[in-house]
Amino acid sequence: MSKKLTTRAEDYSKWYNELVVKADLAENSGVRGCMVIKPYGYAIWEKMQAELDRMFKETGHENAYFPLFVPKSLFEAEEKNAEGFAKECAVVTHYRLKSDEENKGKLIVDPEAKLEEELVVRPTSEAIIWNTYKNWIESYRDLPILVNQWANVVRWEMRTRLFLRTAEFLWQEGHTAHATKQEAITEAEQMMNIYAEFAENFMAVPVVKGLKTEAERFAGADETYCIEALMQDGKALQAGTSHFLGQNFAKAFDVKYTTKEGKQEHVWATSWGVSTRLMGALIMTHSDDSGLVLPPKLAPIQVVIVPIYKGMEQLDAIRERVTPYIKELRAKGFSVKFDDRDTHKPGWKFNEYELKGVPVRIAIGKRDLENGTFEVARRDTFEKQSVGGDDLVQLIENLLEEIQENIYKKAFDYRANHITEVNSFEEFKDVLENKGGFVSAHWDGTTETEEKIQELTKATIRCIPLDAKEEEGVCVFSGKTSSKRVLFAKAY
Amino acid sequence: MSKKLTTRAEDYSKWYNELVVKADLAENSGVRGCMVIKPYGYAIWEKMQAELDRMFKETGHENAYFPLFVPKSLFEAEEKNAEGFAKECAVVTHYRLKSDEENKGKLIVDPEAKLEEELVVRPTSEAIIWNTYKNWIESYRDLPILVNQWANVVRWEMRTRLFLRTAEFLWQEGHTAHATKQEAITEAEQMMNIYAEFAENFMAVPVVKGLKTEAERFAGADETYCIEALMQDGKALQAGTSHFLGQNFAKAFDVKYTTKEGKQEHVWATSWGVSTRLMGALIMTHSDDSGLVLPPKLAPIQVVIVPIYKGMEQLDAIRERVTPYIKELRAKGFSVKFDDRDTHKPGWKFNEYELKGVPVRIAIGKRDLENGTFEVARRDTFEKQSVGGDDLVQLIENLLEEIQENIYKKAFDYRANHITEVNSFEEFKDVLENKGGFVSAHWDGTTETEEKIQELTKATIRCIPLDAKEEEGVCVFSGKTSSKRVLFAKAY
Repeated sequence: MSKKLTTRAEDYSKWYNELVVKADLAENSGVRGCMVIKPYGYAIWEKMQAELDRMFKETGHENAYFPLFVPKSLFEAEEKNAEGFAKECAVVTHYRLKSDEENKGKLIVDPEAKLEEELVVRPTSEAIIWNTYKNWIESYRDLPILVNQWANVVRWEMRTRLFLRTAEFLWQEGHTAHATKQEAITEAEQMMNIYAEFAENFMAVPVVKGLKTEAERFAGADETYCIEALMQDGKALQAGTSHFLGQNFAKAFDVKYTTKEGKQEHVWATSWGVSTRLMGALIMTHSDDSGLVLPPKLAPIQVVIVPIYKGMEQLDAIRERVTPYIKELRAKGFSVKFDDRDTHKPGWKFNEYELKGVPVRIAIGKRDLENGTFEVARRDTFEKQSVGGDDLVQLIENLLEEIQENIYKKAFDYRANHITEVNSFEEFKDVLENKGGFVSAHWDGTTETEEKIQELTKATIRCIPLDAKEEEGVCVFSGKTSSKRVLFAKAY
Repeated sequence: MSKKLTTRAEDYSKWYNELVVKADLAENSGVRGCMVIKPYGYAIWEKMQAELDRMFKETGHENAYFPLFVPKSLFEAEEKNAEGFAKECAVVTHYRLKSDEENKGKLIVDPEAKLEEELVVRPTSEAIIWNTYKNWIESYRDLPILVNQWANVVRWEMRTRLFLRTAEFLWQEGHTAHATKQEAITEAEQMMNIYAEFAENFMAVPVVKGLKTEAERFAGADETYCIEALMQDGKALQAGTSHFLGQNFAKAFDVKYTTKEGKQEHVWATSWGVSTRLMGALIMTHSDDSGLVLPPKLAPIQVVIVPIYKGMEQLDAIRERVTPYIKELRAKGFSVKFDDRDTHKPGWKFNEYELKGVPVRIAIGKRDLENGTFEVARRDTFEKQSVGGDDLVQLIENLLEEIQENIYKKAFDYRANHITEVNSFEEFKDVLENKGGFVSAHWDGTTETEEKIQELTKATIRCIPLDAKEEEGVCVFSGKTSSKRVLFAKAY
C-alpha cells in the first residue's frame, strides 16, 4: 500500500479519509455506517478516556452502566427527545433467527419470536436512566446523583464519515439529578468547562465556549452549552455538549423528591457527553500533508528510536547504547518504542512514524555511535538536531512540552485569524466563501432568520459565545436590532 | 428499606438476589433481562477491568473496537457458531420510528424503514472480527494479531439473574490470529492461565483449570479451556473460557496468509473472554449473612473511618486526629473513606459497610481520643482490636494482606472439602444430593453418557482438569473403561 497522502490543498476531505485509514486509526466495517477502531486509534481514545475519567471523578462523579435497549414506551415518554431521535434509530423487533428451510445453511428471522414491545438501541440514555432514577430518588438526601457511563450508542445517520459521523459511536454520557435549578445549571456549566480544559490542555485544540440557539439545542434540553473548535479547512466542529435539561425528564418520568421542608418537587437534570468524534477534531486540527500530528499528552508512542545499522553487531552496539536512556525515559513515565524490526528499512520507518504522528523521533547510526550523539527530530516542525547523551533525556522532556505548546499555539493563531467580524450580509457571504472560519455577526435572535441564513449560505450558528460582550448592532440579515454577536460557520 | 438479609441457610438464591440489590451492586431495569450496574458495583468491575487490561497488555495484546451489529450474512458464515447463537439473539430489522397517527404521542415502527439485511446485535464477535481480519492479513509478517475489545454483548436468555445471566452483559473478548496451530494453542492456554491468576490473586477465588467436553465447547471452537469456581452452595460457576478455534473462522471467512516459503495457508485462531459474570462469582464465593465480603485488592473502599461523636467540637477533634493517617494511607495507594455524614448514626454506618464488604473499618470516639487509640475491625472475621496511632498504618497494611489471603484460604479449603472422588453411580448421586461440590468420577468419554447423567442428576461435566492424572478406572455410569477422572457438578 502506498503511504503517500493526498494533500490538504488538493482535497481536504480525501486527505482526512486517507489519513484515518493509512495511519491505522479506523476503517469502515462490513456494517453500513459502523467503523472499526483499530488498535492505534483506540490507544489514543483510551488516553482521552483516562484523562476525562479522572476529571469526572475529581469532580465527584461515579461511573455506572445502563441497558443498551430502550423499550419503545420509555423512549417516547419525553416527547421532544423522542421526536429528535425517532427518525434515525435502530429498532430490535425479534429475538431469534431460525434455519431457512428453503435455503440450506441460511438463517431467517423467526416470525414467532416477535417482541411484544420493540426495543430502540439507545441513541442517548436519558429515557432509560430517568426511568431508573425514579426508583433511586425519594428525598433531598438522595441528591445530587452524579453519574457517568462509558458506552456505545447508535444513530442511524445516512451519510457517515470515520469518527465524525458514524451509525455507532463510543462516548461518555453524564446524567445528573439535582434538588435545585441553580445547582443543575452550575453542573452543566462545570462540565462544559471540563470539556474545554480537556480540549485545550490535552488535545491542544482551542475551543469557544458558548450556548446553542434554540434550533440547535439537544432534543429535550432547556439550554445546551457547547465547545466549538475550528478545523484547518475553516469548518467548525462541535466537540462536546452539556445540557441543562430543566425538569423535562423528571416530569416525563414523574421523578420527585421530598424537600427538607417536606414538599414534593420535581428534580432538575443535566446530561453531557463527548464521543469518538473528538478523534476527528484531534486529527483535523493538527495534522499535515505528511500525516498525523499528535499532542504528546495523548500520543500512544511519544518517542520512537530508529536504529540505522548494517549487521547484527552494529544493532547490538546501538541497543546497548540506547537501553539506559530508554529505561530513564520510561521511569519518567514517557512511552518509548525502540523499533529494531529487520523487516523494514529506516527510511520506511521514518515515513511510518511521521504518518502516525509520533512527536519525537531519535535516529542513531554508525557515525552517532562513534561521536556519542543522537539525531533527534520533532514531528510538528520537522526540525532536527544532534545531541550528546548527557543532554538527551532533558532535551526530550523539553521537546515534548514544547510540541504540546507549539501545536496549541499554531491552532490558536489559525483560529484567531479566522474569527472575522462582519457587519453586512455581503461581507458575511464573502468571508464564508473566500476565507472560512467563524463569522462573528449580529443576529436578531429568531429561528426564522437563522434558518434563512442557513438556507442561503449553509452556515449555522455554532454558538452564542459566553464571553460575547454587550454591543449595540443590527442583524446582518434582517436589520433588526441586536445586542450581541454570535458565531456562524459551516460545520462538520 | 430494611437492610436485613435473608440468610444463606434459609434460601441461598434469595440471599444472593437480595445482597446484589441491597449492597448497591446492580438491579433489574425496565428492559427484560437487562441490568443496571450501579456505581458501587461498577467500581468493582472497573478494578477488575484495570487488572485484566494490564495483564493483557503485558502479554502483548492491544485493544480495539468492532461494530455492535453483525449483518445476518456474516453471522451465518461459520455454521456451528451461527447455530449456537441464532436461538437467542436480538435482531434489528428497522431503522426508524414514526408517529402513530391513530394514537397521538405514540411511536410505531416505520414499515418503510425496513433494513435490506437484518442486523444481529453481537452475542460474540468472531464473525464481524474475522470478516475484518481478512483485510488485515496478507503475509506471515502480519501475524500474530493480538487484539482484545471491551464491549457489551446480547444473548436473549429466557431466565436471567443479576450478573450471572443477563440478556445484555459487559465483557472483554480477545481475538487472535496466528501462523501456526501450536502458536494458537499456546495463546489459548496462556489466556486461561491469566484468567486463573486473576481469579486467584485478585478475586481470591480458587479455580480448576481444564478442558470442556465436546458437548460443552464454545460453538465454533475445536477446544475450549476454562476455569471453574465453586460457590458456597456447592454449585460450580464457569468463570472464564479461552477457545482454540482451529481454522474454522479462517475457512468460513477465507482468511489466508502467505508463508515465508510463499505458500498460502489458512490462519489459526483463538478467542477468550470473561464477563460481568465474574461479579457473581466474587459475591457468591466470599460473602456471608451480613453482606458482601470483598477481597482488598478489588474493594473500591478498602478502609472506612467512622467517627462516633456528639457535637461538632468532638467531630472536629476526631477529624484532626485522623487526617494525618488518612493522608499517609492514601499516599501508600490505599482507598480510604472518612464518613462524617451527620444524616446517619454510627450503628447504621457499621451495618452499611458490613453490607458493602469494606475490608477494614476504623471507629474512633471520645474515649479513643482520650486514650490515643483507634478501634480497628476486619470484615472477614469481625475481629476487633484497639490500637495506638504509632501502629495504625502498619496494622492496616498487614490486615489488608491478611484478609486477601484469609478469604482465599477459606474458599480454597471449602473447595478442597468439596471435591469428592466417587466410584459408583450410587455414590455419585449421593454426593451430589447430600454434599454438593465437584464430583470427581470416571467417564467413558461419550456425549451420550454425559447427556444421560445430566438428565438423571442435572450435573454436567464442568471440565477435564488439566492436572488430572492417568488412572485406570471404569465409567460410573456405563462401566466402560476410562483413564482419567473428570469433574461433574451442578452449575450456574
